[in-house]
Amino acid sequence: MDSPEVYEVVDASPEKPMEIAIVGGGIVGVILAIGLTRQNIKVRVFEQAASFREIGAGMAFNACARNCMDLIDPVITQALLRCGAVNMSDVDAEDDYLRWIDGYNQHRPEDPSYQRPLSEIGGAGFRGCRRDQFLEELAKEVPQGAVEFRKRLASLEDNTDNGPVVLNFTDGTRAEVDAVIGCDGIKSVVRKQMFGTNHPASNAQYTHKVAYRGLVPMNRAVEVLGPWKAGNFHHHVGPGAHLTHYPVANNTVLNVVAFLSDPNPWPDNQRMEMEGSREDVLTGLKGWHPTVLNLVNLLPEKLSKWALFDLCEFPAPSYSAGRVCIAGDAAHASSPHHGASACLGVEDCLCLNVLLAQVRETVAANQDPAKNRLALSRAIETAFKTFDTVRHKRTQWLVNSSRRVCDLYHQPEWADPTRWAKAETCFEEIRDRSYKIWYFDVDGMVKQTRDEYELRQHGEKLGNGTNGVFSDERHGGYTL
Amino acid sequence: MDSPEVYEVVDASPEKPMEIAIVGGGIVGVILAIGLTRQNIKVRVFEQAASFREIGAGMAFNACARNCMDLIDPVITQALLRCGAVNMSDVDAEDDYLRWIDGYNQHRPEDPSYQRPLSEIGGAGFRGCRRDQFLEELAKEVPQGAVEFRKRLASLEDNTDNGPVVLNFTDGTRAEVDAVIGCDGIKSVVRKQMFGTNHPASNAQYTHKVAYRGLVPMNRAVEVLGPWKAGNFHHHVGPGAHLTHYPVANNTVLNVVAFLSDPNPWPDNQRMEMEGSREDVLTGLKGWHPTVLNLVNLLPEKLSKWALFDLCEFPAPSYSAGRVCIAGDAAHASSPHHGASACLGVEDCLCLNVLLAQVRETVAANQDPAKNRLALSRAIETAFKTFDTVRHKRTQWLVNSSRRVCDLYHQPEWADPTRWAKAETCFEEIRDRSYKIWYFDVDGMVKQTRDEYELRQHGEKLGNGTNGVFSDERHGGYTL
Ligand SMILES: Cc1cc2nc3c(=O)[nH]c(=O)nc-3n(C[C@H](O)[C@H](O)[C@H](O)COP(=O)(O)OP(=O)(O)OC[C@H]3O[C@@H](n4cnc5c(N)ncnc54)[C@H](O)[C@@H]3O)c2cc1C
Ligand SMILES: Cc1cc2nc3c(=O)[nH]c(=O)nc-3n(C[C@H](O)[C@H](O)[C@H](O)COP(=O)(O)OP(=O)(O)OC[C@H]3O[C@@H](n4cnc5c(N)ncnc54)[C@H](O)[C@@H]3O)c2cc1C
Repeated sequence: MDSPEVYEVVDASPEKPMEIAIVGGGIVGVILAIGLTRQNIKVRVFEQAASFREIGAGMAFNACARNCMDLIDPVITQALLRCGAVNMSDVDAEDDYLRWIDGYNQHRPEDPSYQRPLSEIGGAGFRGCRRDQFLEELAKEVPQGAVEFRKRLASLEDNTDNGPVVLNFTDGTRAEVDAVIGCDGIKSVVRKQMFGTNHPASNAQYTHKVAYRGLVPMNRAVEVLGPWKAGNFHHHVGPGAHLTHYPVANNTVLNVVAFLSDPNPWPDNQRMEMEGSREDVLTGLKGWHPTVLNLVNLLPEKLSKWALFDLCEFPAPSYSAGRVCIAGDAAHASSPHHGASACLGVEDCLCLNVLLAQVRETVAANQDPAKNRLALSRAIETAFKTFDTVRHKRTQWLVNSSRRVCDLYHQPEWADPTRWAKAETCFEEIRDRSYKIWYFDVDGMVKQTRDEYELRQHGEKLGNGTNGVFSDERHGGYTL
Repeated sequence: MDSPEVYEVVDASPEKPMEIAIVGGGIVGVILAIGLTRQNIKVRVFEQAASFREIGAGMAFNACARNCMDLIDPVITQALLRCGAVNMSDVDAEDDYLRWIDGYNQHRPEDPSYQRPLSEIGGAGFRGCRRDQFLEELAKEVPQGAVEFRKRLASLEDNTDNGPVVLNFTDGTRAEVDAVIGCDGIKSVVRKQMFGTNHPASNAQYTHKVAYRGLVPMNRAVEVLGPWKAGNFHHHVGPGAHLTHYPVANNTVLNVVAFLSDPNPWPDNQRMEMEGSREDVLTGLKGWHPTVLNLVNLLPEKLSKWALFDLCEFPAPSYSAGRVCIAGDAAHASSPHHGASACLGVEDCLCLNVLLAQVRETVAANQDPAKNRLALSRAIETAFKTFDTVRHKRTQWLVNSSRRVCDLYHQPEWADPTRWAKAETCFEEIRDRSYKIWYFDVDGMVKQTRDEYELRQHGEKLGNGTNGVFSDERHGGYTL
């Protein structure tokens, strides 16, 4: 498809609104599209699938992410509520805790159902929802015609200062826009285009953890866990594995996920899901606490086995290159042990939302129409560089932190009573890490974003070159 | 020596002031003695050496620790200033940063002296001093006769509710007091007495890192590092090692410490120091950046090799048992990679200072002289349990964190250019960890200490037993 709105240099007019391409209509791409539209910025979303698609699994958003949603556009939070998101643990509720208990050892021989509590960390205000239902509700907020389905990005061209950025799709069509934001997930083609197919950051890596997900009717779960444990979020931790459960569907169903360590390579990097079984899980949890094993026995015999991949080993060195950038999982796909990757993707959306509003202001303030196209290109580059500066450290930290907390959950020390005291010291760190995610200073980020953009624009105006007052060695530089 | 002030039950009189034994006259023991004395609490310090002794090496205190010193007794901060503590980086100074640079790779072939900056983290307000000089100045503030030298603790008896706690010394003498605080360092005998000689927490473990310390005349150092780098605190990091330097002695001398990873066991757990050489360091840093090697070449040929031991693998499960507790390195000896173990020891002193003032108030409020001795015992137990609750998590976290940051400094990834982007993501975590140490809420700790003590005393008055309203499973309990 040739874009009907091809920008030509000669054609540049200050009235012509800028147009942003979003590659990928997942949760991050769609939230970004809603936000930019709300600001009257024209967006075109290109999604490879034939329609919006998400799996039926659960996912949770913390209070910080919901705050970001509100700041982007309150319709997003409304969509979350509308799709039946329930308090997994709400800040307003009486019992706002995530809990860690000993899933391996029996501490009271006389009471085999007793599991020793290890830690509880409160205050996230999580709301759980079904992914497919949330995306369906979000889709209603995207303007008619903004999404083009069955468009799989093949390559990008961002060669000239005053020409458009060109997207080439696998069906041979192309589109021309002022800027491209890749929200195309862990296997991002935009990221590959930025760094080259052979760059190590172009491929996600196996984290050597697999997840088995299943649902258990609540009445059966209560028989095994008792009503209190079944009704509240718990992580059962132990050597080399952990198991997480929380109620969904108005407390009628218990969502259960078992995470196992796997020393072997993953057999097929193209398929992240394979057929697995309850037996696999029971083998991985051999010798665990009877309550955990009884719960696993309530799962169906056939279970999907999900390989957990991430961008930890070879992170994207930058989230921006010229007028192209990446956000959400495309930029920082993480293992799911903090339950926060999409939450940080929503923070990304807020940051980009603020920046593109600034870009529009910069261009509107420009008095010389002949230079307008160039000013727009420069402003977008500044915005995307700013995005990288503001978002890179926190999001890469999450990717690392998720691996780290999983290692702490899976400590071999849980299996050795002389090492329990040591093993339990991990919860101070886990709490700090959780708080860093949950109590993020969103207003501070917005302010930093605005200031950093202005500083860079200013630096550039002062003739300091495209790097402005900043060092080329962003990672090596002294900015914090 | 038989204590001249033996308490007998029959002899208990409300006017008799309580008396606290401090085992160990290191920096923590002496600061604690000064604080308690300032509150008119009687202390007896038992030190095994013939006089106060510290090595001539440097050590630094951050702004938070200096704040604690002020709250305990301003004479402590004055002693620190008097002994010539210099700003290593002061909050009021222009250049308040610790800096990390690439000590391994050459990033600019045309400029072999160039070292790539990795991160700078500011705000600690460190003041460096010589240990021996600080201890000497502190000693002047301890009341005459409070310290008994050449008293090496052999064992403790804390058997009865209303009798004294008995200290037995290796010279066959004994002393009787109301409570014992072990400030006897990493090889603490008090800790051994609390848990038994065979308990794993009774012995510190080798961290598989060794340190080589040396001094270099500043004019020679400047030839190698240039004036700016030589004048400021720097960590040079690389695979399996790091090297730290900062100016001391009014900028006339550069203090240099090289830390090497060591896969082997330490040959002799009784001796933590052995003879080493500059050659050892050069071998450990083979292939490093020429600037680092040139600096090492300025060190003396013979260098002490220090084994770094800590209590990470087998932490003390609790810092209190009855009327006995441990503080400072005795409780939480750490590897030195945060430069903060003594700082946290000072925080311990403030906490104990607050608690023992509360104990005195509790006992003073008691109207029944016959029950006074019992009330004192109970109040001290409450105080020490509170100390454990308030201090255990933060201090064990430090022990873990110090090992963790050393692992991050020593990442093998520094040696592989495809892994640099990953390696550098560590600094977000290092900054968080540093901030957790530096920006500790001291007033919050004091308030928590007071509240927790009151709650426990109250809980006990309500007849909930010695555990008050708290669970026996402190580590497993739900307190945060
Ligand atoms: C087991 C598990 C549990 C999780 N739980 C949580 C949780 O509780 N809370 C939380 O915050 N996060 C959670 N996450 C993380 C969360 O799922 C992701 O962060 C989030 O889904 C990423 O959204 P995204 O829009 O960036 O990417 P995606 O959802 O992957 O969307 C990418 C979109 O781009 C499209 N696309 C891809 N390539 C192209 C192309 N070349 N051209 C056009 N379109 C393309 C895809 O079809 C897709 O629609 C979990 C993850 C896992 C694995
Ligand atoms: C290389 C290195 C660098 C460091 N740098 C810093 C720094 O910059 N900042 C910082 O905050 N910390 C630093 N530290 C940590 C700091 O040195 C210690 O935390 C601090 O010295 C501990 O003081 P302490 O009083 O608890 O124990 P110690 O200093 O070990 O004192 C214990 C005392 O008890 C006595 N004693 C022992 N057993 C008995 C017994 N049975 N009876 C009677 N007396 C006994 C000993 O003789 C000694 O006087 C560093 C540590 C190292 C190894």
